[in-house]
Amino acid sequence: MQLSTQLTKRLNIDYPIIQAGMAGSTTPELVAAVCNAGGLGMIGAGYFDGEKLESEIDVVKDLTTKPFAVNLFVPSNNEIDNGLVEHMQAWLKPYRKAFNLEEPVVNITEQQQFEQAIDIIINKQVPIVAFTFGIPDQEIITKLKAHHITLLGTATSVDEAKANEAAGIDIVVAQGSEAGGHRGSFIDTSNNGALVGTMSLVPQIVDNVSIPVVAAGGIMDGRGLIASMALGAQAVQMGTAFLTTLESGANNVLRDAILHSKETDTVVTPVFSGKPARGIDNEFIHEMNNYDDTIPSYPIQNQLTNAIRKAAAQKGDADMTHLWSGQSPRLAQAVSVDDLMQHILNQSKKVLQ
Amino acid sequence: MQLSTQLTKRLNIDYPIIQAGMAGSTTPELVAAVCNAGGLGMIGAGYFDGEKLESEIDVVKDLTTKPFAVNLFVPSNNEIDNGLVEHMQAWLKPYRKAFNLEEPVVNITEQQQFEQAIDIIINKQVPIVAFTFGIPDQEIITKLKAHHITLLGTATSVDEAKANEAAGIDIVVAQGSEAGGHRGSFIDTSNNGALVGTMSLVPQIVDNVSIPVVAAGGIMDGRGLIASMALGAQAVQMGTAFLTTLESGANNVLRDAILHSKETDTVVTPVFSGKPARGIDNEFIHEMNNYDDTIPSYPIQNQLTNAIRKAAAQKGDADMTHLWSGQSPRLAQAVSVDDLMQHILNQSKKVLQ
Repeated sequence: MQLSTQLTKRLNIDYPIIQAGMAGSTTPELVAAVCNAGGLGMIGAGYFDGEKLESEIDVVKDLTTKPFAVNLFVPSNNEIDNGLVEHMQAWLKPYRKAFNLEEPVVNITEQQQFEQAIDIIINKQVPIVAFTFGIPDQEIITKLKAHHITLLGTATSVDEAKANEAAGIDIVVAQGSEAGGHRGSFIDTSNNGALVGTMSLVPQIVDNVSIPVVAAGGIMDGRGLIASMALGAQAVQMGTAFLTTLESGANNVLRDAILHSKETDTVVTPVFSGKPARGIDNEFIHEMNNYDDTIPSYPIQNQLTNAIRKAAAQKGDADMTHLWSGQSPRLAQAVSVDDLMQHILNQSKKVLQ
Repeated sequence: MQLSTQLTKRLNIDYPIIQAGMAGSTTPELVAAVCNAGGLGMIGAGYFDGEKLESEIDVVKDLTTKPFAVNLFVPSNNEIDNGLVEHMQAWLKPYRKAFNLEEPVVNITEQQQFEQAIDIIINKQVPIVAFTFGIPDQEIITKLKAHHITLLGTATSVDEAKANEAAGIDIVVAQGSEAGGHRGSFIDTSNNGALVGTMSLVPQIVDNVSIPVVAAGGIMDGRGLIASMALGAQAVQMGTAFLTTLESGANNVLRDAILHSKETDTVVTPVFSGKPARGIDNEFIHEMNNYDDTIPSYPIQNQLTNAIRKAAAQKGDADMTHLWSGQSPRLAQAVSVDDLMQHILNQSKKVLQ
């Protein structure tokens, strides 16, 4: 088995290790450190406006000459349901009071933000763009391809992987149920999205598409890397493993929660953002489970809870903020990206002996 | 990487492939075919009385001289709640009527059946015994060890694996969330038991016990075998892959359902037996989701629905019977055990190239 694959050649990276585009938790330092260590770093731009995206790209370019990627959320085109928003605002009132916060005004600027991001990516000649929550319109795909930008999609099922391939996406990430953070589901969305384990998902996707497959979900070290390659993946995407590195943008509450959790501590819940995501179970999730109405869709719910979560994290309150983590927190380490990459590669060699 | 491990030597088998002890679906032919092909076959004796167990062991011994195992359910020691039973009997009345069935009388004979099975295993000199749903009393463990019988336990979490090791169990099966049929959970039992994916579960258990770990859940072929070994397992346990072989005892409704399902078609539900199990979603599950009371515990619910499920399977009605399957039904094949084993081994070699 070889760590160098057609995909590593295509992406122009040394090792088949991609850092997941964790919106809200990547820093230019993290992205550049992964690239400089021979992997593919990715700016998690899901929540960025144009200005922020431009400046992050510029800083990454200052820190590395290697290729890197930007991860974007494909707009959901949900509409604001005022009744649901008012009900949720009322429910969240005590939380806002506790943190001394104003009621936010919700708005949907996803589509224009997304289109702006596409233009920035083209202008700044970012070589690789990754999509979560679906597949962009054909017009955008054509535009990006005309600029020789490589496209990564996300799939949580075989049908989603086939849809990515059919739309002209170059590479598909198979996101197993172990993965932390948002589920990328966009076809199989009922019951919190498809929750198929990585061991099952990867080979079934590999058998049903001809584009390269990247394994994601539960992969933390050289064992997971080699296991994924054995399943037919040409690379792995790792989120939680990079979240606790020194260069990550994760707040201390999140880092500590991951570093002190067990494999059974996470749940998949839509209560923070309106889209299902895996995180460490806490009081906010428990309380929201008593909510007796429909939770507003993404990005509405995300906007409604955002300030509460930020304030909680700043105050060190792990019970009122999202604690995204995959199912392998026992394997997380508080180390530098260089040390993590070295550990993965050394362990891979051992496994292959 | 070597397929021959300390564990294959200890179990005296050629390849690190264990056939899961699927209660209700193993046959002596299946068990012996797996053994004769170099793996470890296992009699799924969870529902057997003493007479049936003795005769199955005898037939297996006629068909193979290789070591084999018996899988037993550790008694839950639940009590009969007459109110819950009456309510469920009333709910199931239309189903019984449709299949022209009498109301069953429920009874709990788990403990005496289990103790009898232990004595039979000792008398018949079965070399290996596997446990699901928990860990037997120390007295039984001591007795089996005095007769040099090797003990396999099941764990769905690190804590369950540690409990197996602490009790003196020799080998632990790490049952990932992809696995079909009953969840083995006995400590982490809330919310349908721990549902940790194989990619996450195996290395975290390997890091926390010193006994050999067997990977289970989503493993169907040589890719899954090598992936599991990379994660640190010394063998794999496969259920669904053997369920569709020609030698298995699965009825045609179940076989056909697996062979025509997608990776997203399964759910984990306690409605058939009272214990959570993964199977292909169907009408019975949907209807039972409207049941407005507590579902009786195992083995009560199992007894209450048993005749309905059998009658449905006989009539070819896939909607009123359990359709146990893991999350990799697309990888299932209707082949002989010999062909399956050959396929796994050939693919393993290819993966390692």
